[in-house]
Amino acid sequence: MAAQPVSVLITGANRGLGLEMVKQMMEPPSQVRKLFACCRNPHGPKTEALQTLAKKHPKIISVIRLDVTDLCSIKQAAPLVGSLVGTGGLNLLINNAGILAKGNLQDTSPEDMQSAFNTNVMGPMNVIKEFLPHLRAAVKASGMPGMSCNKAAVVNISSVMASMESLKQSYASLPAISYRISKAALNMLTLCASEELKEDGILFSVLHPGWVRTDMGGEEADIAAPESVQGILRVMASLTEKHNGAFLDYKGKTVPW
Amino acid sequence: MAAQPVSVLITGANRGLGLEMVKQMMEPPSQVRKLFACCRNPHGPKTEALQTLAKKHPKIISVIRLDVTDLCSIKQAAPLVGSLVGTGGLNLLINNAGILAKGNLQDTSPEDMQSAFNTNVMGPMNVIKEFLPHLRAAVKASGMPGMSCNKAAVVNISSVMASMESLKQSYASLPAISYRISKAALNMLTLCASEELKEDGILFSVLHPGWVRTDMGGEEADIAAPESVQGILRVMASLTEKHNGAFLDYKGKTVPW
Repeated sequence: MAAQPVSVLITGANRGLGLEMVKQMMEPPSQVRKLFACCRNPHGPKTEALQTLAKKHPKIISVIRLDVTDLCSIKQAAPLVGSLVGTGGLNLLINNAGILAKGNLQDTSPEDMQSAFNTNVMGPMNVIKEFLPHLRAAVKASGMPGMSCNKAAVVNISSVMASMESLKQSYASLPAISYRISKAALNMLTLCASEELKEDGILFSVLHPGWVRTDMGGEEADIAAPESVQGILRVMASLTEKHNGAFLDYKGKTVPW
Repeated sequence: MAAQPVSVLITGANRGLGLEMVKQMMEPPSQVRKLFACCRNPHGPKTEALQTLAKKHPKIISVIRLDVTDLCSIKQAAPLVGSLVGTGGLNLLINNAGILAKGNLQDTSPEDMQSAFNTNVMGPMNVIKEFLPHLRAAVKASGMPGMSCNKAAVVNISSVMASMESLKQSYASLPAISYRISKAALNMLTLCASEELKEDGILFSVLHPGWVRTDMGGEEADIAAPESVQGILRVMASLTEKHNGAFLDYKGKTVPW
């Protein structure tokens, strides 16, 4: 595998894909030296597996309280992470935390829409803005040309369900309009960021992790979390400036907008 | 021109494109017999031109208070319109009200994002949901096969700025991320609605009006409001079930997602 990020931050790291990413980043040949595993409540329910991993790798994993719907907690986490990465900065920010509700237009309430917007759009946006100084520090520290996840990158976990091109094929089986709308918004946010910050050398991409057997994906899903995350890590390692603003699935295939 | 809608509702009808639509719908060969011109404050500033038109066509134009960010006002307007259209229902709902802020990622606040989400996404969504019974009534009353704007249709005014395909060409000149993100979300909302309600016979499309010299578009824009609205009315008259879920510009050309 190519050179890998030294410092990584993952939101929603206590379960599902986030937890699996932490797990695989602790396995050889990973070069990750600082891993900020963020979750809403580090000592709350469903954090045992993450805490066990953190105890096994105490020099690498820091479990950080970060609720993407709470701007204060993001503003508290950012300087803490900054002090831990120092001038090396943050190489890779993975906006993984997200929520899914399954309702269609007629049974989705304004509150459902607001929740999805808060977690799936405003969450990543606020996290990107607050951690931007540490991503810029990583660019400065790297001295490398081009773009990559081991220099400075933001990977936003989106979904093929946000693909407008393929909506007609998938809508009836799972409407989930608050999810689709918020992830389409996240895709646009990522594209805008990829343009705005390209001169800064920070790479932005959206990834579709596949339909994965997690709490979110359900038991009927196509693939297990380890397979999805193996793909995600492989794709992230392959990203270059050519993929700035790209929408890729966990196999590296371009997803149509 | 083909058969035209008998009853039409337009949000944001007191200025810009909305006002121009009202104006042109009062000119021959328009068949519009009931026009609900909605605005936040029917007797507030910038409503004189609309009120003058309404006085000239008192049997056709009803100026209705409807603030798309105020669910109560939508819930009050819907039964009022219902009582005026009766069993004929509402043929055409045009979600035209919208806001534009120009900021980029780094200078757009959570409040800017929330405003755009409220007006450009939740507004149309709530309006669609509350007026759905009247659109369904129009389908029932028409007895016609297929889909069209003179049967039952929702046209959401979006923008080429919401096109992910063309973002890289347009971002630097006008970032406007809250606008782009909210209009991409509106596009997805429209697509979802087009799938969910296709069996009901209600057509959903998004239209890009061009870059128009209005308060929103500014003085440097490409075209004047009359030209844009002539195009919009021509495109709306041409819509059939083939255009359900389509994203078209005011010349009828498909805009890529």
